[in-house]
Amino acid sequence: MDKLVLREDRGHVARLVLNNPDKFNALSLEMIEALADAFRAVAEDRAVRVVILAATGKAFSAGHDLRQMQAARKAEDGGRGAFEDLFGRCAVMMQMIPALPQPVIAEVQGIATAAGCQLIASCDLAVAAEGVKFGVNGVNIGLFCSTPMVALTRAVPAKAAFEMLVTGEFVSAERARELGLVNRVVPAEELAKETMAMAEVIAAKLPAAVRLGKRAFQAQRGLGLADAYDSAGGVMCENMMLAETDEGIAAFLEKRVPNWN
Amino acid sequence: MDKLVLREDRGHVARLVLNNPDKFNALSLEMIEALADAFRAVAEDRAVRVVILAATGKAFSAGHDLRQMQAARKAEDGGRGAFEDLFGRCAVMMQMIPALPQPVIAEVQGIATAAGCQLIASCDLAVAAEGVKFGVNGVNIGLFCSTPMVALTRAVPAKAAFEMLVTGEFVSAERARELGLVNRVVPAEELAKETMAMAEVIAAKLPAAVRLGKRAFQAQRGLGLADAYDSAGGVMCENMMLAETDEGIAAFLEKRVPNWN
Amino acid sequence: MDKLVLREDRGHVARLVLNNPDKFNALSLEMIEALADAFRAVAEDRAVRVVILAATGKAFSAGHDLRQMQAARKAEDGGRGAFEDLFGRCAVMMQMIPALPQPVIAEVQGIATAAGCQLIASCDLAVAAEGVKFGVNGVNIGLFCSTPMVALTRAVPAKAAFEMLVTGEFVSAERARELGLVNRVVPAEELAKETMAMAEVIAAKLPAAVRLGKRAFQAQRGLGLADAYDSAGGVMCENMMLAETDEGIAAFLEKRVPNWN
Repeated sequence: MDKLVLREDRGHVARLVLNNPDKFNALSLEMIEALADAFRAVAEDRAVRVVILAATGKAFSAGHDLRQMQAARKAEDGGRGAFEDLFGRCAVMMQMIPALPQPVIAEVQGIATAAGCQLIASCDLAVAAEGVKFGVNGVNIGLFCSTPMVALTRAVPAKAAFEMLVTGEFVSAERARELGLVNRVVPAEELAKETMAMAEVIAAKLPAAVRLGKRAFQAQRGLGLADAYDSAGGVMCENMMLAETDEGIAAFLEKRVPNWN
Repeated sequence: MDKLVLREDRGHVARLVLNNPDKFNALSLEMIEALADAFRAVAEDRAVRVVILAATGKAFSAGHDLRQMQAARKAEDGGRGAFEDLFGRCAVMMQMIPALPQPVIAEVQGIATAAGCQLIASCDLAVAAEGVKFGVNGVNIGLFCSTPMVALTRAVPAKAAFEMLVTGEFVSAERARELGLVNRVVPAEELAKETMAMAEVIAAKLPAAVRLGKRAFQAQRGLGLADAYDSAGGVMCENMMLAETDEGIAAFLEKRVPNWN
Repeated sequence: MDKLVLREDRGHVARLVLNNPDKFNALSLEMIEALADAFRAVAEDRAVRVVILAATGKAFSAGHDLRQMQAARKAEDGGRGAFEDLFGRCAVMMQMIPALPQPVIAEVQGIATAAGCQLIASCDLAVAAEGVKFGVNGVNIGLFCSTPMVALTRAVPAKAAFEMLVTGEFVSAERARELGLVNRVVPAEELAKETMAMAEVIAAKLPAAVRLGKRAFQAQRGLGLADAYDSAGGVMCENMMLAETDEGIAAFLEKRVPNWN
């Protein structure tokens, strides 16, 4: 399992790396479980302040493992049970990303398709190398990207998302940035450095504030305005009552660096 | 009735054409019913895989038929009953578009105003000719575009939508693309060709996958993340169990063209 | 109190001006109450058709008054009661903006941070001077901008909003326009003129139509499509039954200026 997802910690940043380049980092059951395990581990690791989700090889991820899925058809039920299990496990893993206490940044070095694109859409932030392409192209083989759509349509305007889903066509990194699927596009040779730089900016903030902020961000999504303010207002109070926030504000007013250690 | 909305089928693409150019394709009660009838017919036509909604003349559509509406004021109730009926029928017709089993592409050759702009916002996809203008400009004559707003605000960011609604000002095709109201802007002389090309790309996909994908797209809009994944996960299984999807994936793995006939 | 928020009426436009430049128009309790009072006054003033929210000095607003908040920590409860009161009052004031009967345009002449940025996100429209910067940067001092996030995430795509919140980095006026946070960016020397020009365009519309339209805009946000159409359809009828709308449509059909006086 370890080898499917590598973990490299640098300071307070945990960099998880999809590591099955020969299979284009396909999201097999094993890869899904390896990712879920990795997410569980960082969720419980108080030293980790930011997570980077990166990949090795030409592809970031090509989505589901089609050979594995086809093999499941040999079961008596034609694969239905296996597919239910697979998509259920995958949806659980994808939803772990917004639920993680730490911000997750996708570092996209290669093509991302179908559930591979969903992984990126599920991350809080994304940095992509110039030249990378993004697609939710399952429709090309007769499998509409219905679950990737859930993450995609929460990141990208409706008509643009529908176009990608129904034409199966790819968009460039620059277009993905225009659409809101990625935050930054950088030269390929600077991808790891730039993604780490963004992670370190976030890791330098007060960890408790970032954690409570990410939770609050997710909690208020989709709520009506009054409910969203009720939710966020309580978080502001909680945040103000932290001793480190007292110190952070005091330091700012005294024009000095906060002592958060 | 036939003449208000023409239908031209080409292969698996049904091209519906608003055909009252002298009245700028105003959405009179008759035009609304003609569109609803045309949508009902394509909904039941299994040969149709994609719908194009086009128009003749200088305008795509100028919105509601103001003369007809003013005439309704002569009734004893000052027109209230007629207006309720009109807006009710119009809303039903507009909602038929996302509910159609096939993707609908607006082919926008001329100016689109008020409920005419709503028609485009209601389509799944839109291609516009360079130079076309879009407006929800009812406010200019004292009739705020409240129903067009429903479709517009589900396609376009809030502040930009509000600006269009409250200033009555028009946006260019290029700006409409930036805002997410249209997918592509092409030279006027290539509009029909480019729209048909997009339609044919979609028509070449597995029809069952496109149908179930469009339905899934609409079903998960506005749901919370967990509910959306529950909804979409079931669709993925349904999709996988199609014999043609088995063939589509097998063909992909064997590097051959799927045999979907 | 008066001096914290100035009011200058010009025709049917009320221009409210944050007027504590030495404190960067910080949203102290007093400023929040002065704004709430000003909003209450314009809400009840039938002569006011459009509201501009402007500011004096280098900053539009620097957000909450940190010195005042730190002082509140001396209370027995460590400030909790004061913070609950503050964030509650602030949320009520922010929600008065979309609830006002008149459209509100932010006129952004200087830097807007944290709850200052929230004010702009809460306005219906915004015009910014070139060179202005926008940030929700509380995270830099250990106070995640949870309440500003509520307004921001309803104006700006999710990943871009999260980036601003978690990195604390600023975006330019031009980037704010791309993201949907502001409608227009103009040279600093033309800001007041351009904002007033937009206000006068709106003020020249039928006031009853603009009022009912803004209310309808807010009422249908977040509803499912059918519910949104039910809500907006009733408003269209209400709008049609106005005598001035009869006159507005008649004038349009007769190619003359409506007599709305």
